[in-house]
Order: sequence, then structure tokens, then C-alpha cells
Amino acid sequence: MTHGDCFIYAHEHREEIIWMSQNTNQLPTDPRIEGAMLDAIRQKDYVFYPYNKGVFGLREALLADVNAPEEYEALITNGAIEALYALTRALLKPGDGVICTNPSFMPIHHQIRLCGAVPVELPIYAPPYKMTVEQAQEAIDARTKALLLIDPHNPMGSQYDKDEVKGLCDLAEDYRLWFIHDITYIDFAHTHTAAHDIIPERTIDVYSFSKNSAMAGMRIGGLMAPGAIMELVEPYNTNVLSANVIAQRAALASLETKKEWIGRMVGQARRNQAMIKEAVDDIPGLSLPVYPSGSNMFVMDLGDTGIDPDRLQEELLYEHNIFVRSGTYVSEEFGDRFVRISFTVPEEGIKMFVAALPEAVRKLSSSP
Amino acid sequence: MTHGDCFIYAHEHREEIIWMSQNTNQLPTDPRIEGAMLDAIRQKDYVFYPYNKGVFGLREALLADVNAPEEYEALITNGAIEALYALTRALLKPGDGVICTNPSFMPIHHQIRLCGAVPVELPIYAPPYKMTVEQAQEAIDARTKALLLIDPHNPMGSQYDKDEVKGLCDLAEDYRLWFIHDITYIDFAHTHTAAHDIIPERTIDVYSFSKNSAMAGMRIGGLMAPGAIMELVEPYNTNVLSANVIAQRAALASLETKKEWIGRMVGQARRNQAMIKEAVDDIPGLSLPVYPSGSNMFVMDLGDTGIDPDRLQEELLYEHNIFVRSGTYVSEEFGDRFVRISFTVPEEGIKMFVAALPEAVRKLSSSP
Repeated sequence: MTHGDCFIYAHEHREEIIWMSQNTNQLPTDPRIEGAMLDAIRQKDYVFYPYNKGVFGLREALLADVNAPEEYEALITNGAIEALYALTRALLKPGDGVICTNPSFMPIHHQIRLCGAVPVELPIYAPPYKMTVEQAQEAIDARTKALLLIDPHNPMGSQYDKDEVKGLCDLAEDYRLWFIHDITYIDFAHTHTAAHDIIPERTIDVYSFSKNSAMAGMRIGGLMAPGAIMELVEPYNTNVLSANVIAQRAALASLETKKEWIGRMVGQARRNQAMIKEAVDDIPGLSLPVYPSGSNMFVMDLGDTGIDPDRLQEELLYEHNIFVRSGTYVSEEFGDRFVRISFTVPEEGIKMFVAALPEAVRKLSSSP
Repeated sequence: MTHGDCFIYAHEHREEIIWMSQNTNQLPTDPRIEGAMLDAIRQKDYVFYPYNKGVFGLREALLADVNAPEEYEALITNGAIEALYALTRALLKPGDGVICTNPSFMPIHHQIRLCGAVPVELPIYAPPYKMTVEQAQEAIDARTKALLLIDPHNPMGSQYDKDEVKGLCDLAEDYRLWFIHDITYIDFAHTHTAAHDIIPERTIDVYSFSKNSAMAGMRIGGLMAPGAIMELVEPYNTNVLSANVIAQRAALASLETKKEWIGRMVGQARRNQAMIKEAVDDIPGLSLPVYPSGSNMFVMDLGDTGIDPDRLQEELLYEHNIFVRSGTYVSEEFGDRFVRISFTVPEEGIKMFVAALPEAVRKLSSSP
């Protein structure tokens, strides 16, 4: 079966499946968020185009949420992926290079290639499992135009400490690079340093509501940057008629209430990853390269078990109703060595996973 | 006041405003569509990414709705504007020309320019108020790559009869052009000829749910083309994670029920435009260049009244709570001669409009 088939199967059986494959967040957030969606529909907001810069208050709330510098502006998009689509198209010319990593969230690298530019993928599937300042410096050349920092990192779960972000910012400053700070998983981080506080005039924050606000299906996100960068990006906005209005209303409700529930949600996510850690430690050959993760996912290394991650994905899905993601999705080079596991699912799901994992590993280890 | 200010004001007062400015459709459709939205939310579809090719059944239903040729495939996007964004980027290179019109829905022309290509705008603000085969033929040169037919036309409301579509298709065939058939307003048309039945291998249908299904705020649409064209377009898809899932569920419900309610809705739209026609005929100097309109909007020409359409827009908005659109939005060249009026609003709104119009015209005609 192909990966596409896995997805069709998983969607067809969604009610039975423990969905740990796409970094979606199925933990409870706050009923006021769903309430805002229902209200917006009952008020027939969907009949009208939203105000094209976004529903009133949303941009301001988003800028406040990340403590953006005063000169920053926000663009609301149909998910962070569209923010990146417009951004890459606006900033990159054929031949330009973008410093990034492997593994990574590969659709961004595809967007870079669409511009005729080159994702310069630093191998990070070895300690410290993240881009180092030295690696980045060595890779920079005259064609380098930007640095993409997914922080916390997808799929590794690694976090960048203050010195690391500072060091990368210094490089961006020295070599006059755009600093694309993908902060999709920021709310799960134990620590976070904002590049926009260090090099505000070169930083673009890319933001998503999919994970922190548990609404991947709403496709809502955005980017934040100083006015001068925004002027470059706005002509390439993928949707001058704005993003889905129900999603925008939900996003605003999330930002307005987040302080009240985010701690509880992240706490559950951390307990979940601890349960998985305990189970993985008990299985010879398996390991978690990055633990604790600063995100809602991490990578489980398959070591010398000889297990093909595509087969583990299928075994867990078809035999145990658990959907994890083969590493081949996030790395051609290293993907045969791991699966990616998202752990923002209800605790019962984690229990099912830790019960199923030893059995699946035993079966695949012993089969030819 | 600027146009931007008008929009802020109108959104701030949306409950009081008769919204005739954006071709939105505020006529009742079918409660099952809103029901599908509410169900999708209560079932927490929004937590998950939708299946990335679209919720099951939607592509098939869309292809069936337009009677697409068997070899056609569908791509679901966050509104037709994103379908066009991906399409233009995929098909156009710097220097390419696209035959289109003026007036037009100008954001598409902006997208053409983003590719370094040139919108070759045929002037159509004169009878027959639409692109003719002769005009198009004269404008085609070696750089011409595509023909954009908005049919029915925005903002004119003109329709293309079978011979006209056939003639334009023949040109596309002879000169090897892509035929971009923007059928956003198809369900309001009295007559429609599908280019995909004449030159299937060159046609791309661009579809929107905003107007026929009264859900502009959901941002859902798509494009349909044969597999060979789809292969060119898909790499440029603005959102590999698919469109908003609530919007997709609503779109599917709309297609599944449309036959039962579309006639009633279009009937009301036609009665509405007849009421406006009667009022316009009574005011010296005003006229409707295209009547009946094959869409949910038309243009009201201001003749020799000397009225500035921007001022008429403001007068109707601030003094009468009626929001129409100055022609300057859809044509720099001809926009000072008309306003665009969308008439898919409840009949009470039309009554308010026809009551306010003579007074506003009188005031602006007599003022310096």
C-alpha cells in the first residue's frame, strides 16, 4: 500500500483510529473556540467576504500573542503553509539558496524549489538533532538569501536555546539573510527565543493555529514582519479575498482565551510524551533521539531493529488502529531510520499506542 | 474617504447595511448546507487535516455538477481566486500574454502580472459589452498563451452564446492557447456553453461556491481540467494541506441539494434585477448596459449625469445604508462611468435601493 492509501483508509475509519500521524492536536482546548465557530455560522458570517485584512481584532491579537515588535504587521492566511507559499515567492529568485535542515517539513522545501531556489539541507539526524551555528555558517555562500528555522523543529521536536538563536541571527545579520522563523509549535516549547527581538528588520514569523488551537482542518495561520517586508510579501498573497471567516473567528477566540487553557493542554501533552518515553525505553533497539520534545511530536528511532518505518506505519494502522508517520515523509535521506509520532491525543490513545508498540515491533523484527 | 474606509464602515455596520457591493449572495439557499457546517463542527472535523485531495465525494460531485468530460480531474482550493493563483503561476512565463477584458475582475490580472505576463485587456465597455471573436483574434500575437473568459462576465453580467464560445474556442485551438473559463456565475446564466465540450484538452474550468451557494466567507472553490493540465497545476497548488474542511462539507451539501433550490434562488435574483431595471429606467441619464444580466450583478451606467461613482458609492452607503461598488474597482479606464450592483439580496433590500437611488442621484446631480 502507498502512503496515499494509508490516508484514505485512516480517513474512512477516523472514528476508530488513534491519529498520531500529522501533528494534529486532539486534546481539548476551550469550548469558547468551538462556540465562536458555531456563532459565526448562526450569524451567517459565511455569506459575506470577511474584511480583506482579516476580521477586526485578529491581526492585533496575533501580534500581541507573540510579543511582536511595535513596527510589525500581520497577514492572515489559509494556514501557515500559504504564508510560506507567498513568502517564498516574494523573497526568492532562481538560484537563491535557503539554509534549512533534513529532516524537515518538506512542503516548504518544495515551495523554495518552485521559485527556482535551492533548499540547502543541513543534515541534522545526529546529535544535537538541530541546525548548529557552525553548520549554517559553513553552508552559507554568495547565493544564500534566507535561513529557515523551524523552531521547535518538525519532526525532531528539538528546541533552540537563546545562544543558538542569537548565533543564527548574527549570521543572518552578517550575511544579510532573511530569517524565516517558523513558530508553528511555539506553544509546546519549554523555551523559546524570538528572532524578532534580535534582528527585527530581517525576521518573518510564520504562525499556525493548527496545533496550539487544535484546528488543523480550519486552515488558518499567518505571518508577521515589519512593514518593509510586508510590502514585499503582500502582492504575492495567495488570497486577496482573505481566509475563511469561521476559521478567523475561531482563531480570535483562541487568542482571547489561550492563557486560560494552554497550560493544561501542554501539561497533558508532556505527560503523554513521558508515557511514550517509558514504553520506548523498554524496547531494545528503539530510542527517542530528542527527549523531552519541545513540540507535540518527536521521532522514534528504529535503531538496528531492521524495521522498515513504512511497514511499521502500516502494521500499527491496519492491525492496531494507530496511525503514525513513516520517516520517509520528512526525510528521503534519513527517513528509513524512524517514525514520527504526534502525542497530542487523549491519554487513552497513548495507552493503546504503548500497548501496541511492543507487539508490532516484535512481529516486524522477526519477520523477513 | 477611501474604498478601504468604506469597507471598514460597512463591516462595522453589517447588520444595518444592504450589501450589494461584492456579488455576495444573501438569498436563502438550503438549510442542509448550514446544517452540514454545524454537523462538521460538532463532529470536530476541524481538529484534523482533511484528506488532502478534498473530502470524499466532493471532487466527483463538482465534476458532475458541470458535466465535465470523463478525463477531467478536480482540484479543491480556498476559493476560485486561489485556483486562478495556482493556475496562472503554473501556465504563464514572463512575456506571455493573456487575452482578457476591461472591465474585469482585476485581481486575476494582478496574478497574471505576478508571473511577469501581460493581461491584454480588450475594451468591452461598449456594445455588445463582452469580448468578441474579432477583437480577440486581432489581439492575439506570438506571445499570447491563454484566453481568460469570465462567463457570465463580472462586472457586466453579459453572457456568451454558443457561437461566441465556439468562435473563441476555435481561436484557442488555432493559436494553441489555454482557455481559462471562469464560470463563477454559471448558475445565474440564462444560457451557457461549456468550452470543455468543444476543446476539452485546452480548457480549465474555474469554479466558485461563493455566489451560487451563498458562502463567500467560506472561501471554497476549485478548478477542473484534464489530467495533463492538472499535472502542470498541482505542483503550484497554494495549499497541499487542502482547503478548510467545514467549507468542503458545506460545498458538498450544496452540490448534493442544488437541484432542489437553485431554481427558486435564481428566480428571486431575476425578480430583483427586474425591480432595479424599472427604477433605473425612470431616472434620466441612468441605464443598464446589459439587461437582463446572466449573473447576480450588473453595471449601472451613470451616463451624462456627471456623477462620480465613488461619490455615489459613499452617498448610498453613508446616507442610505446601501453598499454598491464604484466602477473604479473593476476598471481604471471605464470605471468613472458606472457602479456595479449585486442584486442577490432579500427583496426588502432591493426596495430600499430603488427608493434611495432617485434621491441620491438627485442630490449628486445638483451638487457641484
